[in-house]
Amino acid sequence: MNIPQTMEAVAITEPGGPEVLALEERAVPQPGEGELLVKVAAAGINRPDVLQRLGRYPVPKGASDIPGLEISGHVVAAGEGAERFGVGDAVVALLPGGGYAEYATVAETNALPLPQGLSLIEGAALPETTFTVWHNVFERGSLRPGETLLVHGGTSGIGTTAIQLAKAFNAHVLVTAGSDERCEAARRIGADRAINYHSEDFVEVVREFTGGEGADVILDMVGGSYTQRNLQAAAVDGRVVQIAFLKGQRAEVDLALIMQKRLILTGSTLRPQSVEAKAELARMLEETVWPAIAAGRYTPVIHAVVPFADVVEAHQMIDAEHVGKIVLKVDPRA
Amino acid sequence: MNIPQTMEAVAITEPGGPEVLALEERAVPQPGEGELLVKVAAAGINRPDVLQRLGRYPVPKGASDIPGLEISGHVVAAGEGAERFGVGDAVVALLPGGGYAEYATVAETNALPLPQGLSLIEGAALPETTFTVWHNVFERGSLRPGETLLVHGGTSGIGTTAIQLAKAFNAHVLVTAGSDERCEAARRIGADRAINYHSEDFVEVVREFTGGEGADVILDMVGGSYTQRNLQAAAVDGRVVQIAFLKGQRAEVDLALIMQKRLILTGSTLRPQSVEAKAELARMLEETVWPAIAAGRYTPVIHAVVPFADVVEAHQMIDAEHVGKIVLKVDPRA
Repeated sequence: MNIPQTMEAVAITEPGGPEVLALEERAVPQPGEGELLVKVAAAGINRPDVLQRLGRYPVPKGASDIPGLEISGHVVAAGEGAERFGVGDAVVALLPGGGYAEYATVAETNALPLPQGLSLIEGAALPETTFTVWHNVFERGSLRPGETLLVHGGTSGIGTTAIQLAKAFNAHVLVTAGSDERCEAARRIGADRAINYHSEDFVEVVREFTGGEGADVILDMVGGSYTQRNLQAAAVDGRVVQIAFLKGQRAEVDLALIMQKRLILTGSTLRPQSVEAKAELARMLEETVWPAIAAGRYTPVIHAVVPFADVVEAHQMIDAEHVGKIVLKVDPRA
Repeated sequence: MNIPQTMEAVAITEPGGPEVLALEERAVPQPGEGELLVKVAAAGINRPDVLQRLGRYPVPKGASDIPGLEISGHVVAAGEGAERFGVGDAVVALLPGGGYAEYATVAETNALPLPQGLSLIEGAALPETTFTVWHNVFERGSLRPGETLLVHGGTSGIGTTAIQLAKAFNAHVLVTAGSDERCEAARRIGADRAINYHSEDFVEVVREFTGGEGADVILDMVGGSYTQRNLQAAAVDGRVVQIAFLKGQRAEVDLALIMQKRLILTGSTLRPQSVEAKAELARMLEETVWPAIAAGRYTPVIHAVVPFADVVEAHQMIDAEHVGKIVLKVDPRA
């Protein structure tokens, strides 16, 4: 395999809007112990990339300053101790940075085989949302078959993944979205009920839908005043899982409600978790979600595929109206 | 066994201070299916009794209007299907009300044998605190050996129980208390570190004590501004468990802190839980805590034993400075 010395990668030239992103020549990274070098086919765009671009998300220690937390591609070299995948294997991987580049190193344990039946473009849209949804909805939130999940932001990458995975594992799913069109999109993807938050009160709708019981698990990226309303919408023994706070980092909670309903308010961020924690998640995903994908029960929803050179446009799109994931096509042949 | 038709019981004559409590003649209750009739030896005094006296804690459906959530005594009759305990057996029990009386009915599954080596007075001080601490610290909070527990209100009945049970199960324990004397009392009972909240910042002390890690489990009955400080004092993957809110029902939380440290904020109230849930807890206690009591690793701390006729005084005491439980001696021969 002919591996060049240098590659094109996206740099954040200074903190700011999408226009601060620019292609730069960088050295191709070397795979360390337990790592793979992947020729990147495509990279998923995620909100933490936007925060990093704005200068609000410091790069974790040891991670590349190049943005990009998920990729698909082919293995072109393996470091010492990396033995599962061989040169030429198609993989998808979660990485702590460096995904917007022609080559990227990844921990072999944080890579998974490209699922059967998916393209490399679709594969690049998988890791962030499946790791996040699995960890927060199924592990942290312990969603069980027959239970009810409420997802805010039902048409985001996380939302469309949560809808499909919850349905694949036989839960009921309600989502909120900001327009009738987005609600319709969420229903097409599988939501049992989509709530237009401009015209309906989600606490009321959840109560009616569940015959007064409330939602067993709530996945929230809104925060602020939503947090207390989530506690109101939750069932006895309900779990509210926070993965972002687009509307406010600080929230007021009613402790009596938490105690009376024995609620759990928790949350997580994926990126700062250890390689080992992510490896454990990857194993779980391969056991649970990968077969669901092979069985056609879950397909990543892709809003747009944007050529590598148009990364600025890709970042403009993520701040605008979209349904599902935006994927950067790094390799024009992918 | 000669069971009278009527008995003395404590009535809440109107909502108000301790002086609204008065002995009244009531009918001796009849044990229903799965119930025991217990001749009460002693009854523990608890904060929910105070709230009920003040008119702030409605009596749960089907429960007696007589206050009292825990008793010790001897079985004098068994309803249909109650087969574990026989007439004459010494038991302690959790009940949804009716404990401040000469006789009380209890669900047999919510009764436990009087532990080996304890008096009936000590036994009456057990159910509320052991059910509460076991459920909240060990089940909800999942405290594990080697972990660190922070308990607010270290010299309350709950506090003194939490200290001893955490030590019995090989955890480290820090407590807060409001005076040097109470701190000294908490240390004597077994706390590794007692924090006088008038002169020390518990967030700082916990950080130092744990080498910067924070507390794994925090048991809180304060609420209000303590809630956010609890999140600050918690370790990564820490659990903050709320069982009351003496300083405020509403609390502001920092969602970023919850996500970054993957914290759990939860809580519970014991009284409204089902007889079945309490039965499951009783089974766990008999397996875990009862042997610890028999081994001398946990002894209820009793502040005062008050004669039945002096129930007004007992309620005056619970609002004043005390260390451990206040027990009402219903049967003068107990």
